[in-house]
Amino acid sequence: MKNAHRLRPLVRDGLSYADKFARLRVRLRDPEWRRYGMLLLAGKMIALVILVVGILLVREFMKSGIAFADAPTTAPVMSTDLTDMTKNPVINPLNTVWTLLGAFLVFGMQAGFTMLEAGLCRSRETVNVLVECVFDTCLCGILYYAWGYAFMFGSGNGFIGWHDPTDATKNWFFLQNVDATTLFNTSGVPVLAHWLFQFAFADCASTICSGTMIGRTAFWGDILYSVCVSGFIYPIIGHWCWGPDGFLALMGSEGHFLPSVGQFFHDFAGSTVVHSIGGWIALAGGIWLGPRLGRKFKRDGGGPMLPHDLTIAVVGGLILWFGWYGFNPGSTLSAMDFQGIGRVAANTTLAACAGGLVAVFIGYAMNKKWDAGFITNGFLAGLVAITCPCYWVSPFGSIVLGGIAGGIVIAATEILEFFRIDDPVGAWPVHGVCGIWGTLSLGLFACGMYHPVGSSPTGVPVPDATNPPLTGLLYGGGLALLKAQIIGSFIVCASTFVIANIVFGALHMFGLLRISKEGEIEGMDLHEHGISAYPEYVISPLAAPAGMPKDTVNYVAPSAAHSSAELPAGISAIPAK
Amino acid sequence: MKNAHRLRPLVRDGLSYADKFARLRVRLRDPEWRRYGMLLLAGKMIALVILVVGILLVREFMKSGIAFADAPTTAPVMSTDLTDMTKNPVINPLNTVWTLLGAFLVFGMQAGFTMLEAGLCRSRETVNVLVECVFDTCLCGILYYAWGYAFMFGSGNGFIGWHDPTDATKNWFFLQNVDATTLFNTSGVPVLAHWLFQFAFADCASTICSGTMIGRTAFWGDILYSVCVSGFIYPIIGHWCWGPDGFLALMGSEGHFLPSVGQFFHDFAGSTVVHSIGGWIALAGGIWLGPRLGRKFKRDGGGPMLPHDLTIAVVGGLILWFGWYGFNPGSTLSAMDFQGIGRVAANTTLAACAGGLVAVFIGYAMNKKWDAGFITNGFLAGLVAITCPCYWVSPFGSIVLGGIAGGIVIAATEILEFFRIDDPVGAWPVHGVCGIWGTLSLGLFACGMYHPVGSSPTGVPVPDATNPPLTGLLYGGGLALLKAQIIGSFIVCASTFVIANIVFGALHMFGLLRISKEGEIEGMDLHEHGISAYPEYVISPLAAPAGMPKDTVNYVAPSAAHSSAELPAGISAIPAK
Amino acid sequence: MKNAHRLRPLVRDGLSYADKFARLRVRLRDPEWRRYGMLLLAGKMIALVILVVGILLVREFMKSGIAFADAPTTAPVMSTDLTDMTKNPVINPLNTVWTLLGAFLVFGMQAGFTMLEAGLCRSRETVNVLVECVFDTCLCGILYYAWGYAFMFGSGNGFIGWHDPTDATKNWFFLQNVDATTLFNTSGVPVLAHWLFQFAFADCASTICSGTMIGRTAFWGDILYSVCVSGFIYPIIGHWCWGPDGFLALMGSEGHFLPSVGQFFHDFAGSTVVHSIGGWIALAGGIWLGPRLGRKFKRDGGGPMLPHDLTIAVVGGLILWFGWYGFNPGSTLSAMDFQGIGRVAANTTLAACAGGLVAVFIGYAMNKKWDAGFITNGFLAGLVAITCPCYWVSPFGSIVLGGIAGGIVIAATEILEFFRIDDPVGAWPVHGVCGIWGTLSLGLFACGMYHPVGSSPTGVPVPDATNPPLTGLLYGGGLALLKAQIIGSFIVCASTFVIANIVFGALHMFGLLRISKEGEIEGMDLHEHGISAYPEYVISPLAAPAGMPKDTVNYVAPSAAHSSAELPAGISAIPAK
Repeated sequence: MKNAHRLRPLVRDGLSYADKFARLRVRLRDPEWRRYGMLLLAGKMIALVILVVGILLVREFMKSGIAFADAPTTAPVMSTDLTDMTKNPVINPLNTVWTLLGAFLVFGMQAGFTMLEAGLCRSRETVNVLVECVFDTCLCGILYYAWGYAFMFGSGNGFIGWHDPTDATKNWFFLQNVDATTLFNTSGVPVLAHWLFQFAFADCASTICSGTMIGRTAFWGDILYSVCVSGFIYPIIGHWCWGPDGFLALMGSEGHFLPSVGQFFHDFAGSTVVHSIGGWIALAGGIWLGPRLGRKFKRDGGGPMLPHDLTIAVVGGLILWFGWYGFNPGSTLSAMDFQGIGRVAANTTLAACAGGLVAVFIGYAMNKKWDAGFITNGFLAGLVAITCPCYWVSPFGSIVLGGIAGGIVIAATEILEFFRIDDPVGAWPVHGVCGIWGTLSLGLFACGMYHPVGSSPTGVPVPDATNPPLTGLLYGGGLALLKAQIIGSFIVCASTFVIANIVFGALHMFGLLRISKEGEIEGMDLHEHGISAYPEYVISPLAAPAGMPKDTVNYVAPSAAHSSAELPAGISAIPAK
Repeated sequence: MKNAHRLRPLVRDGLSYADKFARLRVRLRDPEWRRYGMLLLAGKMIALVILVVGILLVREFMKSGIAFADAPTTAPVMSTDLTDMTKNPVINPLNTVWTLLGAFLVFGMQAGFTMLEAGLCRSRETVNVLVECVFDTCLCGILYYAWGYAFMFGSGNGFIGWHDPTDATKNWFFLQNVDATTLFNTSGVPVLAHWLFQFAFADCASTICSGTMIGRTAFWGDILYSVCVSGFIYPIIGHWCWGPDGFLALMGSEGHFLPSVGQFFHDFAGSTVVHSIGGWIALAGGIWLGPRLGRKFKRDGGGPMLPHDLTIAVVGGLILWFGWYGFNPGSTLSAMDFQGIGRVAANTTLAACAGGLVAVFIGYAMNKKWDAGFITNGFLAGLVAITCPCYWVSPFGSIVLGGIAGGIVIAATEILEFFRIDDPVGAWPVHGVCGIWGTLSLGLFACGMYHPVGSSPTGVPVPDATNPPLTGLLYGGGLALLKAQIIGSFIVCASTFVIANIVFGALHMFGLLRISKEGEIEGMDLHEHGISAYPEYVISPLAAPAGMPKDTVNYVAPSAAHSSAELPAGISAIPAK
Repeated sequence: MKNAHRLRPLVRDGLSYADKFARLRVRLRDPEWRRYGMLLLAGKMIALVILVVGILLVREFMKSGIAFADAPTTAPVMSTDLTDMTKNPVINPLNTVWTLLGAFLVFGMQAGFTMLEAGLCRSRETVNVLVECVFDTCLCGILYYAWGYAFMFGSGNGFIGWHDPTDATKNWFFLQNVDATTLFNTSGVPVLAHWLFQFAFADCASTICSGTMIGRTAFWGDILYSVCVSGFIYPIIGHWCWGPDGFLALMGSEGHFLPSVGQFFHDFAGSTVVHSIGGWIALAGGIWLGPRLGRKFKRDGGGPMLPHDLTIAVVGGLILWFGWYGFNPGSTLSAMDFQGIGRVAANTTLAACAGGLVAVFIGYAMNKKWDAGFITNGFLAGLVAITCPCYWVSPFGSIVLGGIAGGIVIAATEILEFFRIDDPVGAWPVHGVCGIWGTLSLGLFACGMYHPVGSSPTGVPVPDATNPPLTGLLYGGGLALLKAQIIGSFIVCASTFVIANIVFGALHMFGLLRISKEGEIEGMDLHEHGISAYPEYVISPLAAPAGMPKDTVNYVAPSAAHSSAELPAGISAIPAK
């Protein structure tokens, strides 16, 4: 085995990057290694070139149009008469059906998130994941009813909202001045339907945070930070971008924030609002918590702890993809823009496909394995990235920006590993980083065909032809849009990260954030929830962190009422062997 | 360990309630215990007061309107012209799309039910759960086509239906006089679409029963009682409430049942029709079957048998919640009432959130554990409760009644345990009891804003403004509505329970209801289905009931054709260790 | 045990069919055996007669109309004005919502396929299933964008398409001449929405193939054949049936293929196009691959390898059923035909129910066990069969043809077993064979009430009243329709099978198709993906093929970067015992 590294030179061996560079310098002096390296490099380059040339050739051969402006060549025109309820009484009902279909699908993402997180964690912390995901959903519903929706979609000032946009004397706390016929803005959708749609979004942001914090967050800590996230951070910062008078939503226009930018900040369905906010809170949480007991990082000769059920995890990822068809197309809030919803749905799909493919091939290049985690986080990265620009880019643009997201998510995962931050599901790489990339990508790939619709969920149901179509840098639109996107993304991410650090820092100070070491060794599930997720399965000692007494694996606490099941006489604990 | 109970005084220790009272009396004489108890009590009360005061304060502070009438202040007005197909040819198609979307989502609940039941049972009875759920669905489809739909939604008399409401010579058995253009009543929805929606409801009622009967029902017994439930009990009793001439649907009006009540019985989407019927059949089944071998109850020093896969169970619960968005909002059968579907969807969500939160906090107060089963059954209880009143209550009312359901479900679970009835999934507490609570809650919380729509699935697609809005006791509507709800709920539950006892009693008498003791010891799955759900996993002896030879755990019957897989030489049974 | 076969004469004992016939001849000479056999036969016949007579009696008793023409008695009439966008601007949006709802549900089937395949395979090849399903989806999306959609739905000639049907100078490769307002044919649905719907179909065909090839296909081989399937075989052969000028779509009309047939080839939602194509490619793959190591067939004394997680498998089947409501009803591409979508949805349900019931009762007759695999593949068989005729048959016809499919799938499974072809999920029996049966069944059961709509997904959104209603043999329509269906099905299946054999033969020749024996013994997952699906669970030696060193079960390759988790000191492999 002494020469093993010569036989499998691509295999990771736990060296730090510095060590690797040193080794690389040494190796490059060896002619055999040089040949070997060149061969490898050449092979990869050839494959890459074949791929790119192939695509370009076929495109050219088939008489492709202008690069980056392939698919659509004219903008949709739509009579504004269509929105006149008096002219057609079916419009509001149809738009409400569309919005509710979106809301249902986005709510369905909770099943996906729960499966993804439960599958990727260790079995000893699975019940905790399950209860947290359900608890956060329930809590978010009540808070978003109580004040979250008012903060976010009520009018007020640029920083926070509270009242009906049409009547400042009617506050929206507890939805109290929302009468049965109140419609959300000009969308023709009842406020309660819009509330449900937006609640499902808020719930996603909240669930994203919990992914990074798996396996060591005390449940009381979870409750407290969830109140902060669902009740304050998400809706208030969300107001900046999507509120009727949010300062980023109106940025660049006369008399508002940074008029010189000359562009609104755009985030069609929430790459920034939902995913970046969720991802950056998650990062703060992961930092303050520290890694799980026994987690060793690559530079220390370790690596990610193994997921305990990849089937559940990957199926959860697919259910997320399914739910994304509510997230993005539903964000038009209107089916009257039927060209738009078709385009958004197709773009969403293509970005996911490209993200998954790029990530799995990078994984293969790195480890010579077709990695299930990489492909899943790859398509999720594509989905997160396309969430902001989905309305304004072409299918080809979607593929390119989704593919890039597939690469970014892997790099970001390596960065976390390097900084010794334990993120069991990769929430920051997927949502935090690719949320930024998706937001910026609009400034590059907006194809110049489609008018802004405001930031969609604020609700103008038809494209706003009074503003020019959005055009990104690569389509000749200059830097204005990219600049607006950079400013908006930076303000949101930085503010979120600072506030989240204050919240988690306070919880940490009061000792509420992380469970005790004893609890963690006993296992989150037994300690906090009194039961293991799979009491019947014999779990191997692999599942126990270092320092944990081996004979407590799979131990079922006989003192917890719910689990004080009738055990066969003489059996009170199941040794792992 | 002698003083263990002093160190963890809140932990359940298997004493009966009588013992506990005795102990309490003794302890209260001890000053230290009194102090301790007062402290605990005070802490809980303080938390409760903070919560309630907090909500009220914020509400007041924000200038809330009349208590219990917070959200909507005017009723929706809608021209009846909208239902005139000749005026707008898109109305029927849109309503059909809405109804089918509802039908698909409700059908999707089968995946949720199957996961919930499979996850909460032991691994040795999982295949039985899977096959029963699928079998019941298939059987229900054929029976509901053959005569169930005619019994339920055909006209006839107050007790049973059989013919087209507009033509008594056309019976609806085997849907034979339903021609291609028959619409369901005035809804504008084709009968075949309505059939699918209602089949999915019938299937839910049927599946609910099977939950309580897990682990000891013979498969032939399951087939026979399922024929009774899907073919007779559900559709006939359902006709009373939802049939065009059902005696409860018309109760309180001139010339019909109990005209003095002065109110129809209302059940918007089936708290009574689907959930109470299912739950009370389940209870009868559980009683006649008796508990699974080896199940010891709390008063005998035992407790519920452990679920074998909480991940599957909780995700199944979330999928049920997802499907409920078809169940409740879909029951309008019409998207033209777009204010109504938004309201129903939002109310459904809030009741679920409140139910989950209340249940998990009660669980924490009881056991100091955040219980996955409690929170799941809690939100399901909220969903069951809101199913009847969802159209007529305010969001605030939904939260209150859903939260109460979260408490009721736990109390009902304790009652079952006290009476030594083995209900592995809690079907009676969730569906039977909370179905009643939800039905009655309309009489308390109906907010006086919304007109009746008949019992929705019978089909008037717009609110019926010829009848006054429904107003419950707490909103100043007096007792009339509550009385109607009590009468209806009582008649349905009592009739169901009596008939179900006759059915199960007969099956029991002929020895068809329960599998043999040998079969149960061998394991439902091996005995009835010839295979275990997870033949590769090593299952701990915990999964075996007392009296079961330990070395047969996970044994794969080599005689069953389907499972006569090639075993490695010499291995025909896998010992549990 | 010597007399075991006398005690359990119905139990399969691994004899070949020839042996069984010989034994039967011997046994029939024994009077006791004759009596026994007669008794059994009589019992079964009686049950069958009771069932049939029961159905007929009830039908007669209830005054049933003409046999086989029970449900609908008049055809729907619909003004073609409805399709005039200028008359009602809501029609196109509503049809787009309907088509997208269908697309989302069909995409959701990927979660179902993944669960079904993952649950039915062994744990050691599960990660491979997961990664393949996701990879194929991603790949299919890119290829269907690049040229698949153009090949299939573009105009060109009878064999392949490439350009906009209305303008031959605009090719559709990379969707490049699809501008933002291009609608798909006369459907009023934007091309991008139709693309998504059809991508989801293509993805199903691709995923079906992978089911048969589980557990031994090299990943590079999978990539290569998937490119062939998604990029060429499916879209080109699909064009024959569904393309605007496909030679089978136009077969039987003047100036086209076989004008003497006098009927188009009809495939409403793809029994042939999606399922037969997928199933016959799968068969070719299974043949070229050969069985998994250690797989022994019934005639050799073995049987199918055991599935490792029936819960996941059966729930996956239910999710497929759920998704089928997008597959079949969505294929109208139009909600304006609201009678049609209701009918299709109801027929789909009834065929599934009948298929499941027939299969599970056959399984019980065979093995005296209620088989989870049989009932699942049974309802899937019913769903595959109804996919072609769902628009044109009555509910009663759906039940009959779905029930027959439930029998066919079991016979086809036995045939595969007899020919020693290893199909872990039964993809060929379910999709290949029942796809043919469903296609032919239209020629028998088309009830003469409904006009053709072209082959739906090509898009005329209202029934085409210029052609006579479709009438099958059993409804007095003669042989013409059946003949057209036979010709179409034969041409598609034979072509697919031949081409697939060439593809797999070539891959086999280059050694790219199957993984090495060493890799298979190590386990697909560890070899190709570097991780097992459930690293924490102790897996019994049952899961290892014969010849595999027992102590490598559940072994986690420490060399794979992703799985180089921190293992407790001294533990690098987990012995199975």
